Amino acid sequence: MKSHVVAALLLTAAAPALAQTSITTLPPPVVADPRVAALRDDALENDHYAWDIVEGLTTEVGQRLAATDAEARARDWAVKRLTALGFANVHVEPFTMPVWTRGAESAEIVSPFPQKLIVTALGYSGSTGPQGITGEIVYFDSVDSLRLAPDAAVGGKIVFIDHHMMPAQDGSGYGQFGAPRRQGPTIASLKGAIGIVIRSIGTDHHRNPHTGVQYFTDGAQPIPAGALTVPDAEQLVRILKRGRPVIMHLTLVSEKHDGGHSGNVIAEVPGRDPKAPVLLVGGHLDSWDLATGAIDDGAGVAITTAAAKHIMDAGRPLRTIRVVWFGAEEPGGFGGAALAKAHAVDRYAIAAESDFGADRIWRFSSQLMKSDPAAYAQLAAALAPLGITKNDKGEADGTDVDPTIQAGAPWVSLNQDGTRYFDWHHTPDDTLDKIDPAQLRQNVAAWTAMLATLSGGIEPEPKRTKRR
Amino acid sequence: MKSHVVAALLLTAAAPALAQTSITTLPPPVVADPRVAALRDDALENDHYAWDIVEGLTTEVGQRLAATDAEARARDWAVKRLTALGFANVHVEPFTMPVWTRGAESAEIVSPFPQKLIVTALGYSGSTGPQGITGEIVYFDSVDSLRLAPDAAVGGKIVFIDHHMMPAQDGSGYGQFGAPRRQGPTIASLKGAIGIVIRSIGTDHHRNPHTGVQYFTDGAQPIPAGALTVPDAEQLVRILKRGRPVIMHLTLVSEKHDGGHSGNVIAEVPGRDPKAPVLLVGGHLDSWDLATGAIDDGAGVAITTAAAKHIMDAGRPLRTIRVVWFGAEEPGGFGGAALAKAHAVDRYAIAAESDFGADRIWRFSSQLMKSDPAAYAQLAAALAPLGITKNDKGEADGTDVDPTIQAGAPWVSLNQDGTRYFDWHHTPDDTLDKIDPAQLRQNVAAWTAMLATLSGGIEPEPKRTKRR
Repeated sequence: MKSHVVAALLLTAAAPALAQTSITTLPPPVVADPRVAALRDDALENDHYAWDIVEGLTTEVGQRLAATDAEARARDWAVKRLTALGFANVHVEPFTMPVWTRGAESAEIVSPFPQKLIVTALGYSGSTGPQGITGEIVYFDSVDSLRLAPDAAVGGKIVFIDHHMMPAQDGSGYGQFGAPRRQGPTIASLKGAIGIVIRSIGTDHHRNPHTGVQYFTDGAQPIPAGALTVPDAEQLVRILKRGRPVIMHLTLVSEKHDGGHSGNVIAEVPGRDPKAPVLLVGGHLDSWDLATGAIDDGAGVAITTAAAKHIMDAGRPLRTIRVVWFGAEEPGGFGGAALAKAHAVDRYAIAAESDFGADRIWRFSSQLMKSDPAAYAQLAAALAPLGITKNDKGEADGTDVDPTIQAGAPWVSLNQDGTRYFDWHHTPDDTLDKIDPAQLRQNVAAWTAMLATLSGGIEPEPKRTKRR
Repeated sequence: MKSHVVAALLLTAAAPALAQTSITTLPPPVVADPRVAALRDDALENDHYAWDIVEGLTTEVGQRLAATDAEARARDWAVKRLTALGFANVHVEPFTMPVWTRGAESAEIVSPFPQKLIVTALGYSGSTGPQGITGEIVYFDSVDSLRLAPDAAVGGKIVFIDHHMMPAQDGSGYGQFGAPRRQGPTIASLKGAIGIVIRSIGTDHHRNPHTGVQYFTDGAQPIPAGALTVPDAEQLVRILKRGRPVIMHLTLVSEKHDGGHSGNVIAEVPGRDPKAPVLLVGGHLDSWDLATGAIDDGAGVAITTAAAKHIMDAGRPLRTIRVVWFGAEEPGGFGGAALAKAHAVDRYAIAAESDFGADRIWRFSSQLMKSDPAAYAQLAAALAPLGITKNDKGEADGTDVDPTIQAGAPWVSLNQDGTRYFDWHHTPDDTLDKIDPAQLRQNVAAWTAMLATLSGGIEPEPKRTKRR
C-alpha cells in the first residue's frame, strides 16, 4: 500500500515538463546490419591485434624519427608484421625528404636566479652550436603580442612566448594555442631575435617538453627555437615577475640535411571487385624522437590495421581495403603528399585516418551525410552502440589523408576523445602505458564497424583461418 | 499528507541496524580552546606566509643540493626571509659533510632493439666515467630474488631490479619497495655486478626518474647505480620478455669528495619563560638537484614557519618555538644529526617535522597520548574540525627530528595524505605547480593549532604588527 503511494509520487515527479514530439514525425528507423554488429562486438570484446601491433612496434623499434635509420627499421618491422597477418600486396613506396635531427639541449637562467630549465628543440630549429647562446629574455603572452612589438624590443634577445592552453575533448585548443610554435619562431627571427623559447603546447604539468614541427617562412633565417616544459615556463614567468632582467644561456644543437629516405608501407585486403573504389585507412608510422610514439601514432596504425584484419578474418569484402602506414608525418606530412601523388588516378570510396591517440571515439562525421545519406545512416546506426554520436558539422581530418581528400576522395572522421591527448603529445611521455586496452578495443570496434558498413558486403571464405 | 507518508518511510529506512552505545559511557567531553580555534581558522582561510615562502624559495633559489653553492644560496635566502618575518635569534649552525654531485647520464639498449632509456643516478652512485659501461642485463623482481641469486648469475652484468609499488595514503609502500634503491646497489656490488639500474621507486607513469640516497655498506665497492623511469622500466621488462640477451650501455658520471659545507638555519619565537621546554618544528631546506624541491621539502619549511609566524602575530607564547630549516637531509640526515649533537642539553616540549609534501593532513599521532593525555585530547579537539583523525598506533616520523626524538624529546606527527607524493618524490616533477594552495593552508592551520595548543598560552603584545 505504502509502496504504491511512493510509486505514484515518483511518477508525478517524473512527468515531462515539455510535450514530446510525436513519433510519427521521426525519420524512418535504421538499425545496424546484424553481420556488421557481430563483427563490431567481436572486436570490442576480443581484439588483440591492435594491442599486439602497438606493443610490438613501440617495444621492438621504439622511437621512429622520420628519415632516420629508426624509421627504416620500423618499415622493415611493418612489412614483416603485415605480411605475417596475411595482408596482400605488402610493399613500401619510398620517397626522399630533408632530415632534421636533435643534438645536445639545455637551458639555464644565468641571472638573477641561476638555475636549469628543461627545454627541447622544435623541428627544424636552428642550431646554437655546442657553445650555446646567451641573451636577455623578452616576454610575450601571445603570438599577436609579439607581432605588435617593435623590432627594437626583440632584436638581439631571446623571445619567450607564453599561452594558456586548456584540455578540450575535441582538441580544439591546439589550433589557436599552437601558434607560438608554428609562427612564433618565424616572427621572432624576422624581428631580429637571436632565439626563441615557448611554453610547451600542452595541457599537462610535467617536466616533459612538447616538441613539434615549425617552418621558417617569409624569408626568415632559422634561429634556435625550443619549448620549455609547462612547469619550467611557469617558473620563468615567476622569475620575470620579479622585474629584473632575466638572462638565459640556451643550447639547442641540431642538424639538417637533404636527401633523407622515408616511405609509406602499404598493405591490402583485396576486394572481390578490383574496379570498385577503395577504402583507404591508416595512420602514420613515424614518431618524434623523444618517446616511442605509442599514442602518436602507433595506436593509429594499430587500430586501422586491426579493423582491416577483422574484415579479412570474416571473409572477402567487395571493395579493396588499403591500409597505409604513412612515413614522415611529423616533419610535415611527406608521406601523405607522396601517396596522393603516386596514386593520383586511384578512386576511393572513403579515406580515413586515426591520428589522435587511443582514447574512446565519441563522435564521427562524414561527407557521406550529403553524398550518400543511406550509407551515413547505416554508419550512424552501426556506431551508436559504441556511444558514438553523429556530428553533422564535422570536418575531414588526418594530415596524411588530407592530400588525397583534397584530390576528391570522400572522407570519414572517427573522432577520439582528446581530453588527455595534449598531456603527452610530442613529449617523452608518449609511451605504451598511456594506452588503455579497453579504449583501444573500442576504437578497433568502431573502425571495424565502419569498414564493414562500407565494404560493399563481405563474403565468407571458409578456407581462411579465422584467428591466428 | 503524502509528504508525511514519505517522511515516515524514510525514517523507517534509516533505523539503525545495531543498538547504539549509551552516551553515559563516553569519556568526558573535550572542546578546542576558542583562542586556538580562532587562530586555526584564520590560518585556514587567510594564510599566505607558507605560499610566499615556498614560492620564493623555489623561484629565487631553485634546486638546493646539499653542500653545494645552491644550498648555500638557500641558507642566505632563509636567513633574509626569516629575519624579515620578525623571527628572533636567526642564525646558521654550520657543519661539514661529503659532497656527491651528478654529471652526464644516459642509458641505451644496444641490442636486440636499439633505443634510449631515461635514467638518473642514485645518490653516492659510483661513476662510469664519461665513456660509460656496457653489459648484459640480468633481471630480478625483488631485492630478495637478487640476494638468492648465485654470484655467477650476476658477475660482470648490469643488475635490473623491478618492483610494483602502489600509491598509499600513509606512504607505507616506500619502506618495502624502497629496498631496491637502498640495498640493491650494495648486494649487486658484493655479487660482482658492474652496475645496477632499478625501476624508480615511484607510483607515477611519467618519464621522470626518481633519485634518492643509498650507501654502499658491508665493504661493497661503489658501482654505478641508477633509476630508470617507470615507463622505461616497463619497456625494459617487455624487451627482456622477448627472451634474447639484452645489452645496455650505461653512462652515470658523478663525483664525490669530502669537506663540503652545509648548515641548519634556525629561528625562534621567544617564549615568556626561557626555561620552559622548547617546541621544535621544521622541515629541510636542501632538495635533490633534479627539481626545485617544492614538495620535498620547500612545503615543510614553509608550513612550519608559517604556523610559528601565526603564533608570533597573535602574541607571545609561554614556550619558545624553535623553527629549524635543516640542511642536507636528502644525502643522509646530516642536519638532523648536527642539531641533536649541538643541542644535546636542550629540553623540548615536542619535536615535530613536516616532510611529506603539501597535501592535506588526515591524521595525527603523538607520544602525548601516554605522557600527557589531557594535552593529547586538547590537540585532538583542535585538529578534528580540519578533518584530522587520531591515530593511536602512530609513530614518530621526520628524518631530521629523529635524532632529537631518539635523545628523549616527545613527538607529534601530523600525517599528510601521501597518495600523490610518490608520483613526484625525488623527480624533476617536484615543482611548485604540484602544491594545492588550499591544501597547503590546511597544513598551516593544523600546525598553528598544534603550536597554539602546546604553547603554554599566548599573551597578546599590542605593539606588534599583526600582519606584514
